[in-house]
Parts: sequence; C-alpha cells; structure tokens
Amino acid sequence: MTSKTKAASPDLMMYAASEYDSNLYYAVKFVVPDPFPFFQIKGKKIILMSDLELGRSQKQAKVDEIVSYSDIQVKTQKSGIEKPGVADVTAFFLKSKGVHKIQVPYNFNLGLADALRLRGIEIESKADPFFQERVYKSDEEVKMITDSLRHTEAAIHKAENLLKKSKIVGKKIVYQGQVVTSELLKKVINVSMMENNCIGSHTIVASGDLGTDPHNEGTGTVWAHQSLIVDVFPRSGDTFYYADITRTFVKGKASPALKAQYEAVQRAQEKGIAMVAPGMNGRLVHQAIQQDMESYGYKTERRNGVAVGFFHGTGHGLGLDVHEAPRVNSSDHILKKGEVVTVEPGLYYPGVGAVRIEDLLVVTDKGHRNLTVYPKKLEIA
Amino acid sequence: MTSKTKAASPDLMMYAASEYDSNLYYAVKFVVPDPFPFFQIKGKKIILMSDLELGRSQKQAKVDEIVSYSDIQVKTQKSGIEKPGVADVTAFFLKSKGVHKIQVPYNFNLGLADALRLRGIEIESKADPFFQERVYKSDEEVKMITDSLRHTEAAIHKAENLLKKSKIVGKKIVYQGQVVTSELLKKVINVSMMENNCIGSHTIVASGDLGTDPHNEGTGTVWAHQSLIVDVFPRSGDTFYYADITRTFVKGKASPALKAQYEAVQRAQEKGIAMVAPGMNGRLVHQAIQQDMESYGYKTERRNGVAVGFFHGTGHGLGLDVHEAPRVNSSDHILKKGEVVTVEPGLYYPGVGAVRIEDLLVVTDKGHRNLTVYPKKLEIA
Repeated sequence: MTSKTKAASPDLMMYAASEYDSNLYYAVKFVVPDPFPFFQIKGKKIILMSDLELGRSQKQAKVDEIVSYSDIQVKTQKSGIEKPGVADVTAFFLKSKGVHKIQVPYNFNLGLADALRLRGIEIESKADPFFQERVYKSDEEVKMITDSLRHTEAAIHKAENLLKKSKIVGKKIVYQGQVVTSELLKKVINVSMMENNCIGSHTIVASGDLGTDPHNEGTGTVWAHQSLIVDVFPRSGDTFYYADITRTFVKGKASPALKAQYEAVQRAQEKGIAMVAPGMNGRLVHQAIQQDMESYGYKTERRNGVAVGFFHGTGHGLGLDVHEAPRVNSSDHILKKGEVVTVEPGLYYPGVGAVRIEDLLVVTDKGHRNLTVYPKKLEIA
Repeated sequence: MTSKTKAASPDLMMYAASEYDSNLYYAVKFVVPDPFPFFQIKGKKIILMSDLELGRSQKQAKVDEIVSYSDIQVKTQKSGIEKPGVADVTAFFLKSKGVHKIQVPYNFNLGLADALRLRGIEIESKADPFFQERVYKSDEEVKMITDSLRHTEAAIHKAENLLKKSKIVGKKIVYQGQVVTSELLKKVINVSMMENNCIGSHTIVASGDLGTDPHNEGTGTVWAHQSLIVDVFPRSGDTFYYADITRTFVKGKASPALKAQYEAVQRAQEKGIAMVAPGMNGRLVHQAIQQDMESYGYKTERRNGVAVGFFHGTGHGLGLDVHEAPRVNSSDHILKKGEVVTVEPGLYYPGVGAVRIEDLLVVTDKGHRNLTVYPKKLEIA
C-alpha cells in the first residue's frame, strides 16, 4: 500500500423490505415486500434471496451477485448451528467473505444489530443520508418526479373544476345535488391519480380551522368562504418517485383577513423561491420567509397550548421518500445542484383560516427550476 | 413488596413515523408522517410532539400525555447541551422520569439506540410481536379487515367482468377494441378500490409464466388460454387495515395440465383450511398442503437455479401490516383465537403456468371463519 492508495470504502449491510426502505430500493432497484439481507463488499452488491424471490431477483435486481438464502442457511446449519436465524446466516456469510466490520444505515434493525455483534461482527451506523448520491437527483430522476407532479396537478385541477361547477347554498357547497365534503374531493383527487398509477395516501383536503393543523387530512363539510388546504403527495407505482404540492382555495369570497394572509404567504414564498440556488444556506431561505411574514405582523407563538403562525419548516427534500434529506429549516444546509426541495410556507390562525402554498424545485447549476406549474389563485367563483 | 406483587411490565420506547410503523400506530391510533418519540412509563403512554403536530395530537392521539418536544429540547439545552438532538432530548426526558432502562421493538433505530446507550440508557429489544395483543384481532378489527376485503373482491369482480366481456383474438384478449394488458386490469382494480378509499399498491396481475415468480406484478399482454394470477392486498385509508386475496383465472380454455394443477391447489387449500382451528400447529397445516400436492406428483425443486412447485409458506398473519405475525409455514406456531391468517398454496411450473388461491381466515373459538366470499372458478368463457 502506498500513500496513493485510495481509502477503501467501508463494507455495507442493509436488512429491510425494499418496498418500504428507500435506501435499499435505491441500491437494488427491485421491490420485495419482506426483509432480505443486502451487502456491499469490496464495492460489489450481493443480496441473499429466499426461494420465493430467487427467480424474480435474477431478472429484476440490479446487483452483482444473487445468493440463495436457503443455501447459506444449510451451510450455516452444517457449521454446527441447529436452527440458524437471520443473524446466524448473515454472520456466517459475512465471515465466509472475510468481513468482520460493516457500516449500516442509521435506521438499521437494532435486534439484528445486537445479535450480529454477539456473533463477532462490528457494526457502525451511518447518519442519513446513507447514500450521499441519493440526495442529488439525475435528470432522469427529476423527470420521474415531474411526471408524478403532472399527474398530481391534473388531479387537483379536477377537484378545482368540481368546486367551480358547484353552487354555494348557505354556508355549504353543493355539486350535482350533493354537499361537497373533504371525502368527496379526496376521492376525486385520489382516483384521478390512480388512473395514472400514482398512489395517493393521506391526501389533505382540510376546510376552515381544520386546516390550521397542517397535517389534518380534513373530514366532513367543505365550507364556502373559508380556506381550503389541498396538499397532495402521491408515490408513482411505476417509478416509486413522489411528488408534493399544496394549494389553498376559497370557494366564494375570502374575508379580508384571510386574503391578506394568503398574500403574505405568497409574497414570502416568492421571496424564498428566488433565493434557492447552489451555495445558498437553506437556513437563510427559511429565516427570510419567517422574517418577511413577521414584518407584515404575522406572529408565530403558542396560544392555549397550540402553535399558530408559521411553525413548521420551509421545505424538505423529496424523491423515493416524500420527506428526505435535505431539510430547509432552522438548521444549516448548503444547497447543491440536483437537490429537489419543497418551498412551502404557511400561516395558520384558528378563526381566520389556514394558508399554505407549496412548490417543488430542483437546484440547478446557477439557480433553480420550479417544477410546479399549477397556478396560485385563492378564490374560486 | 410481597410475593403477591405482580412483576412490573417493562417501560417501553418507540421512535418512528406512525404512518409507516404499525406498532406505533397501534399504540397511539394517530398517523404522523415523521418520526416521533413514544414512551410507555409505568403503564402510561406519553408522546413528544413537534409544534407541527401538537394541536392535532391533542385532538386525535389516544395517549395519556402529550408533551411538547420543543419544550423538552429547551430544558435539555438549559441542562448544558448546546444543540440537543433526538438522543439528547429523549435521554433527558427518560432520566427526568427516573427511567434508565427501556424495552424497544426489534426494528428500533440502531443509530438512536447506540446514542441512547452512550447517554446511559439501557436498551433491550423485544422480538416480534412487540404487542402480543396485536396478533389477536377484536371483532371490530375483523370487521375492518372484512370491509377492506369486500372492496377488494368488488374490484376483482370488475376485472373478471371485463375479461368476460372481452373477445379472444388469436392469442390475445380484446376489450372494446383494445388489447387487454396487466396494466389495464391493475388500473381497473386499483381505481375501483380507491373509490372506496382502499389503497392498492403492487397489485399483481401476472399472465402465463410471469406468474411463476409469485411476486412478479405482471406487465404487458394478458394471454388467452394461459394462467392469470390476480393477487390484491390494499390498505384501507379509513381504518388502515389490510385485506389480501388471490384468484387464478384463464380467459378461454386451460390446458389439461394447468387444469389439473388448479384442482390440486384447490384441493390442498380446502384440506389446509379445514385444519385451521385453535390449538392446531400451523406447521402441520403447511405440511398437509405440501404432502397433498406432492401425492399428486407436484414436486418442489430447483430447476436451472429457479424454484418450481410450492416454494413459499402457506400463509401469513394480516392486520395493520399486510404481512405480520403469525406465519403459517415450516415453523411451529400454535394457532389461537383471533388470529387472522391467509391460506394461499400455489404451484408454479414455467411452461405450464402459475396457480395460487388465497383466502383470509379468522381463528374462532372452535375452528375458523373464512372471511373471503369470492368464488373459485378457473376458466372465464
């Protein structure tokens, strides 16, 4: 070894269901609904597959080597362990490869880690992001995110159209003889997305004060002349990439206070978006948005034990997870090319209403590109 | 303390997003998309909530106490830690409650566990099931599962009807002028379920040899006169309980070999289902199914490195997770009242085709109740 020798990258292990664990899916590009062991040893990707998944993995998994789990289990048994479990089998496999130390994701299974340590494997967890390159989206990944976003915008368009065609009757909204509810609008949105194999869950359609809890999904009557938060974030069933967008509507006439609140959020969002560029600290974007809204008198504080004002982060990374690195909030983070982040300020005041406007941006060479094209207009006549 | 004193149950901790972690959802009945700390201390459930979720948790979470995460963070900071992270905050909180030892789920976050251990908290992981009572479904839970199943059966019925109304043209199937594909049938099924707020993902509609990989979702042309595996397992967006059902169809005429294979699976499934009762060992159910199919000449082996025959377990528990305890396979498990399990034997032979038939059962006082009502008929004219 000379001083020119590059430091060897650590050997890696994951153990998860790639249907739910995005790091593992990112590594193997192969969806499995049950946990399986993944290794990266001397740079080579190896997976241990059950008989159930053996044939499919040979066709679909993007790895260097596929090993039969049951074959290794038999070998482990022959080595003297009567009923070898996952820890026995994976420890046996690692040792057979001469590996005694592995790096694992921060969210690695504690029970398995403790069992591997008892079997002499040294384990070190790595803080997120486990794969740094997952944070920087390729053009192809940006396209997949944008495709999901277009289907999402088309779905919101259907909901907005339904509201346009509805009539206001007293404080309620009526469409083709039925009272418009959060459930109805969510169904219109989720079914539209599913027609394009985008899978919506926990779609938010929250009317009036319900929307002042930013993650309240909304239920029951959608009230005329009150704020309506529509926040939609499906995962594509084709590519597994998410999209995320929020718009705020009022069917009828918004109160002057609500209108002013909307304008404050929109102005602050524009200010924040304009700052997004490589080299910019996300904390400064967040603070600029906070300060801009504060300068118009919108205070963030706790009233009766409940937060009001702007009490969440400005944005989050998005890709194979709907919330992933980086965060755009009060923590330092220098934005870099290829990062895809939301910019979604909001203001929430029970009695007045809720406003949140969310766009999805990709950081480019010199600035950013706003992937979202849906218009921002509060009132629906 | 006298000998009559009941052993204190251990104090518990979880740290996860309850949207994805079913143990945590089960404990709090409250959906949060980002990880948060949960404690059960001297039997009382306590959660630390971010400002973002504080208001909503007070309305929705089924816990004994809700504490502001940011309040504890400030206190931790005042205790002398400059930028307290999750491990600092939760260790501070535990110590303030006099707790120095906690039990956590097997899949607890390793990075956090190691950080808590460094801060003097003793951590022991518990093998699944973390909450034993989650395994035994209440009547209400069985009803929620059955509701999801009915919506799933209605969706499969739509797909079967589409096939009934289609015409065979050469080897293909044509519906209203378009060639029937896996994608088309999956859309019909997933959209129908979404209309009832049941969220399907990874729905399997796999034609011919594609189905011989049991988890191949299927793609492209659905071939006439060949096996079609339809395996559907949505999660309810209302109750979060899953359903799971598989049927095998042939549009047109099945070959004699495929017909015999179907009859073998159906006969074996009936035999297995008849055995399901409290006190029965699931291993014996699995072995009876294996032996029955073998007795008709259906061998399970590996050909060219790929498993053929019946190479997966007979069934799995189902509830808030699509796969959960117990498993019905080669491991010992004594079935108990309230367990909801699938019975889903299959036979897979490339060149002949794939057959899997799956019903969902609840173990009752004296036997079982089959929750599935969808008929079992191979050929669609």
